Amino acid sequence: MPRSSLQKSSPETNYRLVISYRGTRFRGWQKQGSSPTIQLEIEQVLSRLWSRPIIIHGSGRTDTGVHALGQIAHFHAPLRFKDTRKLRNALNAYLPDDIRILDVRKVLDDFHSRFSATSKEYEYLLFCREVADPMELNRSWHLRRKLDLSSMKQAAALLLGTHDFASFASNPGYSRETTVRTLHRIQITQKGPRIRIRYHGSGFLYRMVRNLTGALVRVGDGRLNIEEIAKILKAKNRSEAPPPAPAHGLYLVKVHYRK
Amino acid sequence: MPRSSLQKSSPETNYRLVISYRGTRFRGWQKQGSSPTIQLEIEQVLSRLWSRPIIIHGSGRTDTGVHALGQIAHFHAPLRFKDTRKLRNALNAYLPDDIRILDVRKVLDDFHSRFSATSKEYEYLLFCREVADPMELNRSWHLRRKLDLSSMKQAAALLLGTHDFASFASNPGYSRETTVRTLHRIQITQKGPRIRIRYHGSGFLYRMVRNLTGALVRVGDGRLNIEEIAKILKAKNRSEAPPPAPAHGLYLVKVHYRK
Repeated sequence: MPRSSLQKSSPETNYRLVISYRGTRFRGWQKQGSSPTIQLEIEQVLSRLWSRPIIIHGSGRTDTGVHALGQIAHFHAPLRFKDTRKLRNALNAYLPDDIRILDVRKVLDDFHSRFSATSKEYEYLLFCREVADPMELNRSWHLRRKLDLSSMKQAAALLLGTHDFASFASNPGYSRETTVRTLHRIQITQKGPRIRIRYHGSGFLYRMVRNLTGALVRVGDGRLNIEEIAKILKAKNRSEAPPPAPAHGLYLVKVHYRK
Repeated sequence: MPRSSLQKSSPETNYRLVISYRGTRFRGWQKQGSSPTIQLEIEQVLSRLWSRPIIIHGSGRTDTGVHALGQIAHFHAPLRFKDTRKLRNALNAYLPDDIRILDVRKVLDDFHSRFSATSKEYEYLLFCREVADPMELNRSWHLRRKLDLSSMKQAAALLLGTHDFASFASNPGYSRETTVRTLHRIQITQKGPRIRIRYHGSGFLYRMVRNLTGALVRVGDGRLNIEEIAKILKAKNRSEAPPPAPAHGLYLVKVHYRK
C-alpha cells in the first residue's frame, strides 16, 4: 500500500513538540520504567489529556543531567485541540516547572522527529574561575583554570568535516551503525569566565559532544596538544581519548529538518 | 579608652568575607534556630575550623530565595590561616555548593560589614516570554507579557534621589528608623527576553527593591502610569503600592565601603 493512502486512511494527527527542559532532576530523556524521565512526564500528561496511552518519539536521547532548549518530539493522536496553542498551554499547566513545551504544531504524517532530522546543534558551557559561581550549579562545567581559546579553536578546526568519530563515541559497540559523522561547525566564544562551545553536525554519536568537549578542554589547559588530537581522532578508539565533560554543561539547542 | 588602644590590645583578627550564594534552598541570610540559613552554614564551618563558636555579621539580611553575588560579612577570631586564600579554600571545601566564599581578607578592627557600608547595589532579573524557560527557574521572575522599557525608565527616574520610601518598605513599623533613603541610580537594560534592573542606593528598606520592582513592572505592563508612581511615592504608605516582585529574581550584587 503506498504511503499516501495510508496517510489518508489514518484518523490520527501528527503533533510536533518543541520542548525545553532542565535535565538536573531527570534520568535523561528516555523512558525507563517509572524513573523520572522527560519522556515519561510528557507521555503521562498527554495520556491524561487524550484519556488513552500516548507514546512520543524524541529526536534523540539526552543523558541524565543534560538540558534541552529545543528538543523535538512527535506523537500521533486523534485530532483534538485544533488550536495548538491551547494544547501547549494545557501541557504546560500539567507538566512540572522544569519541562516546558515551547511550541506545538500539526505536521505531515510522515514527519519523524528522529528520522527526518538533518542536523543538530548542541552547546557546552564552561565556567572558568578559581571559585565556582553558585548560580552556575548544574548549568555549566566549573574549571579552576583559564583555558587557551586559540589552541582550542585550532583543535576544533581539525575535527570539522566528515570523520570516523569512534574515538569520541562512548560504548561504540552499542550500535552496529557507522561511527562516521560530519561536523559542520564548532564555534568557541568567551565572555568573562564563561566559554560557550557550539557544535553543529549531521548527527552525534553517544556522548560525542561530551567526549569532544573533554578533549578540547585538555587542549585549552595545556594537557594535550593539537597533534595529539589528530592522533586520537585517527586512532578510532575511545580508550585513546580523554574522559567526557560532565553532563550538566550540555544543552541540546536545536534540531534541523528539511523545510 | 581611645579606640586605637583597644585595637592594639585585641588578640583577634577581623576577617572580611565576600560571599556568593543561591538563595533557593535557604531561609534567607539570618540565623533562625536550626533552619537552613546562609549565616548558620558559614558559622558552622568557621566554628569547626577554629574549634570554638564564631559569629559572623552580614552587611544586611536577604530574604528566603534571594541570591547574592557579593554579600559581605565579617567576624573576629584569633589569627589563623595567615594565607587568607587557604582559609577561603578551607571554607569552600566544607560549605555546600550553593554557598561560595569568593574572597577572604584581613581588615582593620573597626571595619563592620553593615555599619561601614556606604551604599549597595541590587539587581532584579525578569524573563519576559509567553512560555517560561526551565533554565531560568528560581533565577528570574517569569512574566508572560512584554514590558514597555521606556515608561519603566521614566518611572525609575522619578524614584531617583532622596525620598521617604515608606510606600516601598514592607513592615515599615518594624523599625523606628527613618524611611528616607537615596537612590543613586536605576539602570534598566534588556537583552532578548531578559530585563535587568540594577539599583544603586545609600541603603534599602525591608523589601524595598522587590517593592520598587513590583511597581516598575506594573508601569511596564501598562497597569500603572508615571503619575500614579509619583502619587504612590508621595503617599508614604505601603498600602498604596503594588505587591512586591517575588524573591527569586533578586540579587545582592555589591556592597560599597569607604576606601
